[in-house]
Amino acid sequence: MIVVLKNNTKKEKREQLIDLLKDMGLDIHVSEGKYQTILGLVGDTSSVDIDLIESLDIVDSVKRVSETFKLCNRKFHPDDTVITVGNVKIGGGSMAMIAGPCSVETEEQITAVAKAVKASGADLLRGGAFKPRTSPYSFQGLKDKGIELLLHAKKETGLPIVTEIMSAQDLPLFDDVDVLQVGARNMQNYDLLKELGHINKPILLKRGFANTLSELLMSAEYIMSNGNENVILCERGIRTYSDYLRNTLDLSAVPMLHELTHLPVIVDPSHATGIARMVPPMALAAVACGADGLIIEVHNDPIHALCDGAQSLRPEEYDELAKKVRLVKSAVRS
Amino acid sequence: MIVVLKNNTKKEKREQLIDLLKDMGLDIHVSEGKYQTILGLVGDTSSVDIDLIESLDIVDSVKRVSETFKLCNRKFHPDDTVITVGNVKIGGGSMAMIAGPCSVETEEQITAVAKAVKASGADLLRGGAFKPRTSPYSFQGLKDKGIELLLHAKKETGLPIVTEIMSAQDLPLFDDVDVLQVGARNMQNYDLLKELGHINKPILLKRGFANTLSELLMSAEYIMSNGNENVILCERGIRTYSDYLRNTLDLSAVPMLHELTHLPVIVDPSHATGIARMVPPMALAAVACGADGLIIEVHNDPIHALCDGAQSLRPEEYDELAKKVRLVKSAVRS
Amino acid sequence: MIVVLKNNTKKEKREQLIDLLKDMGLDIHVSEGKYQTILGLVGDTSSVDIDLIESLDIVDSVKRVSETFKLCNRKFHPDDTVITVGNVKIGGGSMAMIAGPCSVETEEQITAVAKAVKASGADLLRGGAFKPRTSPYSFQGLKDKGIELLLHAKKETGLPIVTEIMSAQDLPLFDDVDVLQVGARNMQNYDLLKELGHINKPILLKRGFANTLSELLMSAEYIMSNGNENVILCERGIRTYSDYLRNTLDLSAVPMLHELTHLPVIVDPSHATGIARMVPPMALAAVACGADGLIIEVHNDPIHALCDGAQSLRPEEYDELAKKVRLVKSAVRS
Amino acid sequence: MIVVLKNNTKKEKREQLIDLLKDMGLDIHVSEGKYQTILGLVGDTSSVDIDLIESLDIVDSVKRVSETFKLCNRKFHPDDTVITVGNVKIGGGSMAMIAGPCSVETEEQITAVAKAVKASGADLLRGGAFKPRTSPYSFQGLKDKGIELLLHAKKETGLPIVTEIMSAQDLPLFDDVDVLQVGARNMQNYDLLKELGHINKPILLKRGFANTLSELLMSAEYIMSNGNENVILCERGIRTYSDYLRNTLDLSAVPMLHELTHLPVIVDPSHATGIARMVPPMALAAVACGADGLIIEVHNDPIHALCDGAQSLRPEEYDELAKKVRLVKSAVRS
Repeated sequence: MIVVLKNNTKKEKREQLIDLLKDMGLDIHVSEGKYQTILGLVGDTSSVDIDLIESLDIVDSVKRVSETFKLCNRKFHPDDTVITVGNVKIGGGSMAMIAGPCSVETEEQITAVAKAVKASGADLLRGGAFKPRTSPYSFQGLKDKGIELLLHAKKETGLPIVTEIMSAQDLPLFDDVDVLQVGARNMQNYDLLKELGHINKPILLKRGFANTLSELLMSAEYIMSNGNENVILCERGIRTYSDYLRNTLDLSAVPMLHELTHLPVIVDPSHATGIARMVPPMALAAVACGADGLIIEVHNDPIHALCDGAQSLRPEEYDELAKKVRLVKSAVRS
Repeated sequence: MIVVLKNNTKKEKREQLIDLLKDMGLDIHVSEGKYQTILGLVGDTSSVDIDLIESLDIVDSVKRVSETFKLCNRKFHPDDTVITVGNVKIGGGSMAMIAGPCSVETEEQITAVAKAVKASGADLLRGGAFKPRTSPYSFQGLKDKGIELLLHAKKETGLPIVTEIMSAQDLPLFDDVDVLQVGARNMQNYDLLKELGHINKPILLKRGFANTLSELLMSAEYIMSNGNENVILCERGIRTYSDYLRNTLDLSAVPMLHELTHLPVIVDPSHATGIARMVPPMALAAVACGADGLIIEVHNDPIHALCDGAQSLRPEEYDELAKKVRLVKSAVRS
Repeated sequence: MIVVLKNNTKKEKREQLIDLLKDMGLDIHVSEGKYQTILGLVGDTSSVDIDLIESLDIVDSVKRVSETFKLCNRKFHPDDTVITVGNVKIGGGSMAMIAGPCSVETEEQITAVAKAVKASGADLLRGGAFKPRTSPYSFQGLKDKGIELLLHAKKETGLPIVTEIMSAQDLPLFDDVDVLQVGARNMQNYDLLKELGHINKPILLKRGFANTLSELLMSAEYIMSNGNENVILCERGIRTYSDYLRNTLDLSAVPMLHELTHLPVIVDPSHATGIARMVPPMALAAVACGADGLIIEVHNDPIHALCDGAQSLRPEEYDELAKKVRLVKSAVRS
Repeated sequence: MIVVLKNNTKKEKREQLIDLLKDMGLDIHVSEGKYQTILGLVGDTSSVDIDLIESLDIVDSVKRVSETFKLCNRKFHPDDTVITVGNVKIGGGSMAMIAGPCSVETEEQITAVAKAVKASGADLLRGGAFKPRTSPYSFQGLKDKGIELLLHAKKETGLPIVTEIMSAQDLPLFDDVDVLQVGARNMQNYDLLKELGHINKPILLKRGFANTLSELLMSAEYIMSNGNENVILCERGIRTYSDYLRNTLDLSAVPMLHELTHLPVIVDPSHATGIARMVPPMALAAVACGADGLIIEVHNDPIHALCDGAQSLRPEEYDELAKKVRLVKSAVRS
C-alpha cells in the first residue's frame, strides 16, 4: 500500500502517522520527493482501513498495490479452478449449460422443462423455490415444496440442480441440492456468505446489480475464507440509465474476472436483458468473450407460450440457441 | 394498471390475454383507439407481475396507475407518522439528532462520545456493534460486547440507542436496543425485513446504495406488512461516477419521499460523503430540504483526532454544527 | 400518446387541458375509468413536450405510444440500410472492419499501419486528426496536416478513411474524407449534427458515454432530418461505477438497436475497454451479438510496442483477431 | 505523478520506460521497494497521457499527485474569484439570483417575467433563445429574435441577461448579452469553449449530466487557458437510475468544488428536478451548503399556470422562495 502525503506536512504529524501504521504491524518505507513524500507500507495491509487513512488531513491519497482478495486471486493461484458437479465441469474454459424455469410451479412443469433442456444438452437444472421479490405482495416461491419438486425432476432426469438460498436458517432444506445460488440482492449479506463458507457444496454467487468486481471478489472471499472454495461467479447485468433494457449486461466483466481470479465465471443473459428475444444474441456474446457457462431461463408454460414473449425461452428456442452456443464456442477455441 | 397493446394485434391473442387477466380476479376495460388498444385493469393489481405482462409479444407497454406500496403510501395515510423513542419524536417536521461513533470500541470511548453529543443536544446515540465490511479481513465489530457497551452508555446518559442488525439470528441480543438499523447492503435482505416486521421496535431502514425510491418503499412495506409500522427511512448516498466523493448524497429524495410516504425521512451525511469537512454543509442542506433528522458520526478518538480528518466529526465540531442545524431549521420553518 | 389523469381531477381543469391539446392539432379520445381517466392523443405528437404535460398538476403520467424518432425507425423502414463506402458495405449483417491508430502521428506511422491492417483484411482506415481531449494541455491532434497524412495513406493503400470532425467550421478540410466521425462528446452538439445533415457523406455517430438509445437515435434523426440518411451508429462503452475498466461496453445495445432502427450498428471495443488485451474478447462478443462492423485501434509505434500493452493492438495481434472475427461471424450466421 | 510498476518487471523494459518519460522532459525518481518499484515523475506532467502509461504491460497503476487543472485550481489561487455583472457580484459567498423563463416566447412574456422577478429581488434575467433539444422536431427557440426580446426586457428592467450559446458561429448575436451560458450537452464541445476563451464576458458553464468534477474543471480550464478567466460553474443534476426525478441534484459538488477551485459555483434546481414543487426545497438546500447563487425558472404563462404544475415557478412562488433564500443564507452565514 502506498500513502501519498500532502505537500508541506508537518514533521510531527507525519511521525504520528508512521507510528500509528507501525502499531498495525507494518514496515514503512519513506520516500521523500521534491514535491511530496510517499510512504510504502509493507506487510499484511488487508485489514488497513483505506478510507480512514485517506481521510486524514495530511494524506493526499492512498493506493493499494496488492488487492485485498487473496484466496480467489489469480496471482496466488494461477491455474483455473474447475468445479465438478455430477459429470459436469465448470471452469477452465468449460461451457456449462444451466437451464430451467424462473420459478418452480408444479411437478408437471419442472419435470417437463427438465426433460426438454436435458434433451438439448443442458448440464444442470435451475428453478427458483425461494424467490426474492421486490414486493412483499408478489409470489414468494413454493419454498420447501419447490425444492421437493426440483429433487423429483432431478430423479427423473439425472440433472444436478441449482436453486437460490435466501437465509442460512433454510440450509437444512438444501441437503440434496447440488449448487446453492446466492442472488444479486444478497451478494453483500455477509452473515449468509459466512454460513455458506461452512458447507462444501458449490456456491453460485451472482454479482449484485450495482457492485464492482472488487466487491464481488470480496464476497467470494467471505465464502472461501470460511472454508468453502467452490465458488462460481455469475454476471447478470448491472443497473445503469438504460432506457430499453432492464439492466446492462456487463460482458467485459468476463475477461476481466478471468484475469483477476481463478474462479469460474458464468453469465445470466435472461435476467440481464429481461426480454426473451435478446437472450440468444447476448448468450452467444457471453460465449465469445470467454464465459465458462450460461444460466438461461426456459419454460414450457402455456400462459407464457400464449404470446411468445416472456423473458424465458421456449424449449425449442433453447434448443436452437444451445446448438449455436456450441458453434461459437468452437470458433473462439480454434 | 394500464396495458397498451401493439398495433395490429390478433384478436385471438388479445382475447387470451384478457382471459388470463380475468383469471387473476381483475376487471378489464377495453378502450379501442385508432392506433392502439388499451386495457384498463381494475382490482387488486399489486401481485401482477409487470415484467411478465410487459414481455408478452402483443404488449407494447404496461403502466401502473397506482403504486404497489400501500401501507407506507401517503395517499392512504395523509398524516405524517411520528415515531416516539424515549422523549424524542421522529417525523412530522422533527429534527431528531442521532450521533455517535462508527464503531463501538471501548467503554471509555462510547461513554465519552455519548456524554459529549448529549451535551450538544443529541437525541439518540448511535454506534456499530455488528459491522458489515466489504472485506472478511476487516474488523467486524465487537458484536454482543459492543451492544453491552452501548447499553452502558445509555445508562450513563439516558440517550436511547440505535445500532445495526445484520441477521435475524442475532435478534435476542437487541432486546434493550431502542432503534434497530438495517444497513444499506441489507435493504433487500427480505428474510431479515420480514423478521423485523414481527417485533415492535422502530426500524431505521437505510436506502441501498443503488436502490430507487420505489425499492426503498417496498422494503419498508416488507416490514410494515408483517406487522411493524414503525419505520424510519434514511438517505445515505447513492453510487454514481463521482470522482471526489465516495457516494452522491441524493437530497432530492427527501422532499420526494415526503410526498410519496408518511414515514419519517432522515439523512446520513457522514457515510454519504466519507469526509468530515463535507459533513456540516451537507447536514445543513438536508435540514433545508426538510429532513426529519440527521444521523452523524462523532468520535473523540485520539487516532482520528491526530490528523483532524476522518469521516467523523470531533465533539466540538459536532457542537458547532448542531447550533447551525437549529438556525437553519428555524429559517425554513418560518 | 397517452395521458393518464389523476383521480378526482376537476372537470374544469380537465377541459382546459383537452382544449390546450386540441389547439396543438391533436384529436383527443377520452376514456373514463372507474379509477382514472385516460386521454388518448391522436395525431403528430412528436413536438409535444412530454415533460411539460407530465409536470401538470392534474396529470399522473404520460406515455408515448409511438417513438419520436421517425426517419431511423425500423417500423417505417423495415429493411436494413446498407451504406456503401468504396467497395465496402456497412449494414445488413455486414462485418466491416475499420482499423488504424488513435492519432495520426507521422507519414511513416499512418502508412505502415494502413498497409498492415489492409493485409489483415481491414476495409477502412481510421486515424484521429482532430482530437477531443479532456485537458486543453493534452495533444490536440495534427489537424489539417493529419488529414493530409490520412489521404496519403489512402492513396498508398486504396483504403477509404474515417476521421473525426469536431466543428462544422472545419468541414472544407474533410472534402476527400470518406466517412466523418462524430465523437461521443459531440453526440448532442446539435449545431454540428445539423451541418452534417447537409452533406451526403456517411456519418459514423458514436453514442455519448452516458446517453440512452433514444437519445442516440434522436441525434441520428438530427442528421437525417436535415437530408443525410447515411448514418452509422457506434456503441463505444458507457460510464458506470466500474472499477477495473474505463467504461462498460453495452453490447445489449447492438441487438436492441437492430430492433429499433434500420441503420447499421458497429462497435468500438478499444475505447470501451481502454486495455489492449480486453479488445479481442470484446470484439468477438460484439460479432456474436450481431454488430455490423468493428472499429479497432492498431498501431505499430515503437513507444507503445515497447511495453506491449497500450489500448491499441499491434498489427500481428490485429491479424489474429481478424481471423477469429471471421470464424465467429460464420458460426453465428450458420 | 507516481507510476507503480508491477512486480518482477524486467530491468530492460523499465529502463525503456524511464527513457521515454525523460524524453518528455521529466525528472524520474526511482524508489525500489521490496514488493514493487515506484517512479516519481517530477516536472510538468499535465500533458502526460495517464491512460497510455497505465495501459503499459509493466505498469500496475498511475496516480496523479497534482491535479491537471491549474488556472482554476484553488491551490494556486486561494482567494475566491468574484465576477461582477452590472451591480451584481457572483462568488465569494454571494447569493446571486438568476431567474426567468425556460424559453423566450414573446415580448409580453419576457418583459412581464423580468419585471416580476426584479420585484422579488432577482439580480439577473435568464431566458433561452437558442434551445438544445433532444428531438429535431421540438421547438428550437426564437434564436436572434429571442435575443432581441431579452435585450428589450433588459432595457425595461435594467436586469443584466444570461442566455445560452450553442455554436461559436452565433457569437456576433451575443454582443449585448451579459453572461453567456454553455449548456450541459456542450460542456465538452471544446471548439466552442476555446472560442469563448477569446472573449471577455462571463461564461456560465453547466456541468454535463454525467461528467465528473475533474471534467467540469478541465472544461473551465479550456476557457481560461484561452484567455477568459470569468467562469461561473453550475451544478444542474446528474444522470442516475432515479425513478421519480429526472436527474439527481448533486449538491455535495458545491462544497467540493469550493475546495477545489476559486471559481463561483451556482445551482440550477429547476432542471435538476424537473418538477416545480421540488424547486423550493432543493433551492434552499443549495443555499445551505454554500452555493454562490441560484438559477431558477419562472414563468407567468397562462398555459402553464392552468394546472399549477410545470417545472417553472409562478412569480408569486418565486417571490416566496426568494424570501426564504435570504433567511437560510443568513442562518448559515451566522
